[in-house]
Amino acid sequence: MHQELPHARPVEFRLLNECPDTQARRGTLHTRRGVIETPAFMPVGTQGTVKGMLPEQLKEIGAQIILGNTYHLYLRPGHERLARLGGLHHFMNWDRPILTDSGGFQVFSLGALRKIDEEGVRFQSHLDGSAHILTPELSIAVQEALGSDIMMVFDECIPHPATRSYVAESTARSSRWAARCKKARTDESAALFGIVQGGMDRELRQQSAEDLLATGFDGYALGGLSVGESADVMYQVMEWSLPLLPQNRPRYVMGVGTPENLVEAVSRGADMFDCVMPTRNARNGVLFTSFGRISIKQARYIEDAMPIDPECSCYVCRNYSRAYLRHLYQSNEILASVLNTTHNLYYYLHLMQDMRDAIAAGKFKAFREAFYHKQISAGEA
Amino acid sequence: MHQELPHARPVEFRLLNECPDTQARRGTLHTRRGVIETPAFMPVGTQGTVKGMLPEQLKEIGAQIILGNTYHLYLRPGHERLARLGGLHHFMNWDRPILTDSGGFQVFSLGALRKIDEEGVRFQSHLDGSAHILTPELSIAVQEALGSDIMMVFDECIPHPATRSYVAESTARSSRWAARCKKARTDESAALFGIVQGGMDRELRQQSAEDLLATGFDGYALGGLSVGESADVMYQVMEWSLPLLPQNRPRYVMGVGTPENLVEAVSRGADMFDCVMPTRNARNGVLFTSFGRISIKQARYIEDAMPIDPECSCYVCRNYSRAYLRHLYQSNEILASVLNTTHNLYYYLHLMQDMRDAIAAGKFKAFREAFYHKQISAGEA
Repeated sequence: MHQELPHARPVEFRLLNECPDTQARRGTLHTRRGVIETPAFMPVGTQGTVKGMLPEQLKEIGAQIILGNTYHLYLRPGHERLARLGGLHHFMNWDRPILTDSGGFQVFSLGALRKIDEEGVRFQSHLDGSAHILTPELSIAVQEALGSDIMMVFDECIPHPATRSYVAESTARSSRWAARCKKARTDESAALFGIVQGGMDRELRQQSAEDLLATGFDGYALGGLSVGESADVMYQVMEWSLPLLPQNRPRYVMGVGTPENLVEAVSRGADMFDCVMPTRNARNGVLFTSFGRISIKQARYIEDAMPIDPECSCYVCRNYSRAYLRHLYQSNEILASVLNTTHNLYYYLHLMQDMRDAIAAGKFKAFREAFYHKQISAGEA
Repeated sequence: MHQELPHARPVEFRLLNECPDTQARRGTLHTRRGVIETPAFMPVGTQGTVKGMLPEQLKEIGAQIILGNTYHLYLRPGHERLARLGGLHHFMNWDRPILTDSGGFQVFSLGALRKIDEEGVRFQSHLDGSAHILTPELSIAVQEALGSDIMMVFDECIPHPATRSYVAESTARSSRWAARCKKARTDESAALFGIVQGGMDRELRQQSAEDLLATGFDGYALGGLSVGESADVMYQVMEWSLPLLPQNRPRYVMGVGTPENLVEAVSRGADMFDCVMPTRNARNGVLFTSFGRISIKQARYIEDAMPIDPECSCYVCRNYSRAYLRHLYQSNEILASVLNTTHNLYYYLHLMQDMRDAIAAGKFKAFREAFYHKQISAGEA
């Protein structure tokens, strides 16, 4: 169903529409494993599975691409083993594109268990305490062994708040690491994206973007967002950074975010997203709806025969009541996670489809207003 | 797809084939929600879900009927609430037949938390310690509120070993309770099955069967098996008891068992089965194959690219390696339970289909020999 188009680069981004009044844009990203319509949301498949979902179920709800985690798969089952087993796609029975992160985010999240120097990051496995060093070169080797279609450069996701001098030092190092990643790449049919860092500092964001553009990548991401800053600051950084990136390359805002965050990021010109929010929230019983979030564990739903969201047409909303979903959650049933995840991912993927449709119709601004109006009305009700 | 046939009773059993050389028989059980081909295995859906399986997935692997648990659903979400929510079928999105147990087995399993007298069983909820009394009348009221298609009489599943005097006393009480259940029934379109008890005592099994036949039920079960007795004793009790039951009524052997147990029970004339073995084992990483059981957590599978069972054509064996399933299990992934359960239930349901085919072809004895030969060969390998 994804038609391959001839192109010289490992990915080609085609801009289809730009929206008047906002920076929102619609396009197609052509990869060796198929075409992704953008703006796109990528469900997160940390350990070789999007938790609770079969590949066929992901396709049914419209997932075009998923994300795999280099750190987790490097530790278990191991990238060399995965390569011998035919790569991540074959391992997990997923034939559409996979984007892999660099492992940087997870390694830096280890806190006291890791140490950074110019070479890379020394860390201890969260599984067994074993000692490892992750470098830009190893990160690319792991991502290539997995068979990633879109690889990310190894960088530091800078914590927030941080001193300006630390942000400057880290950002410069990430730029050097990005260049090493490009040099380490051997698989020219897989894309490699650079990641703009620079914390919440406009000048450092600009410097980072310039460094990456000088090296040259197939696409560009904004990293270091959704790390504790306010939404206003996040949007400000997007407004500073996104216009610095080339129009003819995809722009990926990493680890973001809430439905509101996605709408705001798209209106500022972002094309790709990933976030654990829909999947992790699902497992905690928090569900996204057209009128805001609900917590299905609440006693008010104990005998509620309505679907999660009467406006949603996903499999779960077509077949199950809030009362049933609450019962499954309270009973610690596996199906609670399965059904909640199905609904939340459908919500996210459907939101992206709605945004693509609105951009195509030149009505993104009206879409955005209606999106907020609905949530505000529900909040007041 | 299940064509309803006109009949006076809530269920009608039609005997299609009897096998030469064994007591194995093939038939169809016609219920108000469709036809069940026998011998049949019923996946267990304790809390309104067969753990980890969507209703559509159950249908895809050939589940014709599932079992619901009166005790669990009475406590949560409650049978009156379930009735207001449209009954168990609607609640869990399952439109094929449901057989419900009586709650007796679970209540008696509570040990120190329960007390028996002629009226019924006083017990404390395992969820919140609240006090309850389950009687034959309440058991039927709960099963009717759930919308059960085949209800079971409330009885005591006698522990093993037990003194003869206790078995005699309990069996006589179960017979009186069974008669009370029949009297309490108000929904004449739902079937009610009696349960032969009597421990491992031939005379008491015979007495129990006579009592139940005198009262008269739509079908008959053997209870009190797979409670710690040896397989030889279990088969002996089947040989004593099954011939006492009418040829034109279905015979259900409760809570049994291993694949071998099913083959042996079918060869002795049993028609219906339920057991948590395929589902519970799946969640513990134990998988059934044509060459015996394997434990997928073993290190030997870490890089094994083979499917669980090369002879199996289930969704899991067609798409995933042992290495992937081991990885999911080791990583505590939800998908481990989903895929393992899918495979194990397919194995059980497929085994029943193979037995039905063998009986239809008049070759059940040869089937049984081949079944053991394969397992023994694998054991020697």
